[in-house]
Amino acid sequence: MPILKLERLTQSAFAGFGDVIEMNDRDWFHINNGSTRRYHNQSTVQVTGADGQAGISLARGDAFKLPQTVTMLERHPLGSQSWIPMDGAPFLIVVAPNGVDGLPDEAGIRAFYADGGQGVNYFQGTWHHPLMTLGRQGSFVVIDRIGSVPNCDERDLAQHYTIDGAFKDKAVPPLVSM
Amino acid sequence: MPILKLERLTQSAFAGFGDVIEMNDRDWFHINNGSTRRYHNQSTVQVTGADGQAGISLARGDAFKLPQTVTMLERHPLGSQSWIPMDGAPFLIVVAPNGVDGLPDEAGIRAFYADGGQGVNYFQGTWHHPLMTLGRQGSFVVIDRIGSVPNCDERDLAQHYTIDGAFKDKAVPPLVSM
Repeated sequence: MPILKLERLTQSAFAGFGDVIEMNDRDWFHINNGSTRRYHNQSTVQVTGADGQAGISLARGDAFKLPQTVTMLERHPLGSQSWIPMDGAPFLIVVAPNGVDGLPDEAGIRAFYADGGQGVNYFQGTWHHPLMTLGRQGSFVVIDRIGSVPNCDERDLAQHYTIDGAFKDKAVPPLVSM
Repeated sequence: MPILKLERLTQSAFAGFGDVIEMNDRDWFHINNGSTRRYHNQSTVQVTGADGQAGISLARGDAFKLPQTVTMLERHPLGSQSWIPMDGAPFLIVVAPNGVDGLPDEAGIRAFYADGGQGVNYFQGTWHHPLMTLGRQGSFVVIDRIGSVPNCDERDLAQHYTIDGAFKDKAVPPLVSM
């Protein structure tokens, strides 16, 4: 089974798949007469389709452990979807580009590690793995399209992949079993 | 100076001003093959006006202390605005209904205590006080209208009010100085 090596989650590395939502190393400006720093407009909420509107939900994910096997991806064709930690939980992210047939292009599959201070907003239509909170339960703010039209496609992958906690960049220490 | 007694933040008590976003005592359903609980659609993101779209920002608020004096309120006429804690920070909320002149109706001014596990989404146009994180810094997810048209009205109140940590319901212990 191929090993999927992790990458550190950065806005530039993730640019084809979504936005990274975090305070670390980001610009901010003061609001509220100087008492609040605003890290402004980190991502846009995308909503399409006749009856859709942007809604705020919460989610609590079970603890996943390493090694983790990845067998499927999903996408939301009608809108973006954010996962922003409320309690500092790290999580695994697996994404793939759209192939010419609209299915996940497994030649481009990638895995990222969100360190607990980072959230993501998957762009509309991005193939991604469901939430895998690492080592502990985690609570998240989910902003996505609310509507009656089905908005989730799922696809089994041609291959199965293992995430064992190692990073592509060998200078990054592997995640220990969590 | 009149004392503004606190109320516990509940969806029903806050119904005229916004939605309360929390997991405690809320319905949920399973997603992700049973590994994630989704507390679905707790609030709708409201965006109006020609160039507006819903955006995700983060914010970090300074620590406020009790007693706290309230002298002004603000509102966002073109959209809702959420404040959802990312690190469990409690905060004070002050809101007032719209008077017939569109200004805050101080006869109806109310103060709430968000306990750290609770966020709010102020409805479009709700008069509210800027963020007052209590006793510590706090980080928040802010979902609101992004656009070029001005979207913040501020008004000084006719009276000034003190929040000293006492609750309307005398059975609730007052907040100790934080």
